Amino acid sequence: MSPEAPGFCHGAPPRGTPAAPEQALEWLDATTAALAGEDVAVAAAHGRVLARPVHADVPLPATALAGCNGYAVHARATTGAGSYSPLRLRLRAGGRAALAVDEAVAVASGVPLPEGSDGVLPRDEAEAFGPALEVYGAVAAGEHVVAPGAEAAAGDAVLVAGRRLRAHDLSQLVAVGLEAVTVVRRPRVRLVAAPGSALAAGDAAGVMLEVLVGRDGGLVEGRGFATDGAALDGLMAAPGADLTLVYGGSGDGDGDFAGAALGRGGALEIHGVAINPGETVGLGRCAGRPVMLLPGAPLACLCAYEFLAGRAVRRLAGGGGDWPYAVRRATLRRKVASRLGRLEFCRVRLEEDGAIPLAVSDGRLLASAVAAEGFVVIPLHSEGYPEGTEVRVHVYQ
Amino acid sequence: MSPEAPGFCHGAPPRGTPAAPEQALEWLDATTAALAGEDVAVAAAHGRVLARPVHADVPLPATALAGCNGYAVHARATTGAGSYSPLRLRLRAGGRAALAVDEAVAVASGVPLPEGSDGVLPRDEAEAFGPALEVYGAVAAGEHVVAPGAEAAAGDAVLVAGRRLRAHDLSQLVAVGLEAVTVVRRPRVRLVAAPGSALAAGDAAGVMLEVLVGRDGGLVEGRGFATDGAALDGLMAAPGADLTLVYGGSGDGDGDFAGAALGRGGALEIHGVAINPGETVGLGRCAGRPVMLLPGAPLACLCAYEFLAGRAVRRLAGGGGDWPYAVRRATLRRKVASRLGRLEFCRVRLEEDGAIPLAVSDGRLLASAVAAEGFVVIPLHSEGYPEGTEVRVHVYQ
Repeated sequence: MSPEAPGFCHGAPPRGTPAAPEQALEWLDATTAALAGEDVAVAAAHGRVLARPVHADVPLPATALAGCNGYAVHARATTGAGSYSPLRLRLRAGGRAALAVDEAVAVASGVPLPEGSDGVLPRDEAEAFGPALEVYGAVAAGEHVVAPGAEAAAGDAVLVAGRRLRAHDLSQLVAVGLEAVTVVRRPRVRLVAAPGSALAAGDAAGVMLEVLVGRDGGLVEGRGFATDGAALDGLMAAPGADLTLVYGGSGDGDGDFAGAALGRGGALEIHGVAINPGETVGLGRCAGRPVMLLPGAPLACLCAYEFLAGRAVRRLAGGGGDWPYAVRRATLRRKVASRLGRLEFCRVRLEEDGAIPLAVSDGRLLASAVAAEGFVVIPLHSEGYPEGTEVRVHVYQ
Repeated sequence: MSPEAPGFCHGAPPRGTPAAPEQALEWLDATTAALAGEDVAVAAAHGRVLARPVHADVPLPATALAGCNGYAVHARATTGAGSYSPLRLRLRAGGRAALAVDEAVAVASGVPLPEGSDGVLPRDEAEAFGPALEVYGAVAAGEHVVAPGAEAAAGDAVLVAGRRLRAHDLSQLVAVGLEAVTVVRRPRVRLVAAPGSALAAGDAAGVMLEVLVGRDGGLVEGRGFATDGAALDGLMAAPGADLTLVYGGSGDGDGDFAGAALGRGGALEIHGVAINPGETVGLGRCAGRPVMLLPGAPLACLCAYEFLAGRAVRRLAGGGGDWPYAVRRATLRRKVASRLGRLEFCRVRLEEDGAIPLAVSDGRLLASAVAAEGFVVIPLHSEGYPEGTEVRVHVYQ
């Protein structure tokens, strides 16, 4: 066999010292930034990131609201009322028609007050007897009332740019009268499977990547299967994607198929990062857009996605790049050994306040992630942690 | 005005002592259980709950895999190798063709080994010089190899019933050769807006409910606006929904429109629950299916949804009912007062390890939830917490 045989010199894992994780993150942060804004209907804006702040055009609330469950009254009509000296008011049906001084109307917290009322008598301080309300306490004008503009004056910022919209933020947008908002465009992500023995069993990595890209705010623009180098070249160079993720064919024993293609059609700027699993990841550019090469083996693909590609998707979508996982503190129930010079992902099971390590560098099996409730990151320059160490567990959702 | 005037006797908030939160949860748990299973494609099963366990038909992995990044070898060919006594092997291109005893091939963790190889030499213990691999260490047979069946033997359960499928679970399902899985059917949830002054400003609650129902695994089957009692009766009784959520028109000062309709067309079993905000919530049944009446004011609607309706959706979808929020421990930076006899939701901002309470019972404004990072639950029989108390914060996503 000659050293010029195809694939030979690209035999993976990539040679040389892998890049430091910090260096890969710097490359990534320099390469990805929030895309431009687009207008979408408020109802479709959940999870999107505001590209511009939202201001209230009108005061919020526009009219006075009840501040508790109870009865809207004219405050002065309750003066002197007490448990031993109750007063009586006429209990009127609902609606916002002007309230007479001797009337009261049942209101729930948060609803607009009828005209004329300027106080809300808490429910405990009155009792209804047919058409009459017996009043056992006095309220001052403005008491238990949310004044117009209490949430925001006209012109105030209701939500700032960069805000990832939650379900109840959408309510607030409707309340200020908006029908559409300007949010960061969702990054179009192309998924390309490159031939590799890790893909032989089915597209196990692709199905996972599609979900993760969506979770991080991306839109899978297409899924391609590159059966040869020319197909891969074409898929990396074709317009329409903001980010291309090639999985498999990178340092997986089948020749560095993906790395060679990116080197040929664009630039492979970092190949190999000191993370484990996921070390064979590659970062580069093609046709002016970022391309990432991910391992095809599902666990390595997961870790490389989490550490690098997911951050790219979240940054393009306008987010800060942080992991979307909740963090829980737990105490290691067994020691964890880690390889010096590798940032390692240790999957753990959670048991009350304890974290039971499942696997680190020997955890090449996806089963360790399936069995885990989350993972602990062991820094580059650590050899691991003894039993009893308090660790931060990133909890899978 | 006569006591028989429409809406009068239904003047809200609902009368009498509200039900204990525990009692409402018991009603809910007795009324809702996981729906039947349905088959869906693995790629569409993210977030769904397995209705049946998944077994491996074949051993997993089916063939031996590399257990680390390195070089697949015949273990016996490395016997005696050391840093001072290196051995040489021929470095072959990738692929799974049978490996000769004097050959090595680069492999990444997790990929199938070529025929004949029975050990993986970690990358650090060898160095490639053109077509030759210099070997600085010995491996034993089976070392750094994932044996066939190491993840699961044929017939083993790979995932148990009740599992909410994560992104990487889907990978594992593909790896065991499945194309479809049996998951709990998504509950069809009907959203109905009932007339009420809280809805005057726009459907602020509806847009939020639609997102929350989706988050909890439900499918919004339709959104209706009931402009009168007959329309509401019709929407509650019509087939096609597993759960109906009526919002507005329940104890909001406009007459107990929704409660009256449910009492007429079905059964209003609990009206008023000792939670704040959200006290006017109602629970009942119509045409054999659960119906919940939620307040129309967005904050009260949010809390009532979170405490009761969301749990119903999650249970119907096969989940355990727990909140989908991460919990973070934090120290109260200010005291929180709470009303005895009400389970209260206190929105808080998070600042390092501190939680700054924004509002409890006076927090009738949605702005407090928009400004908050999460909330603290203050139990029924508590009058609140002093500054410095360690609390559990449910963090909004």
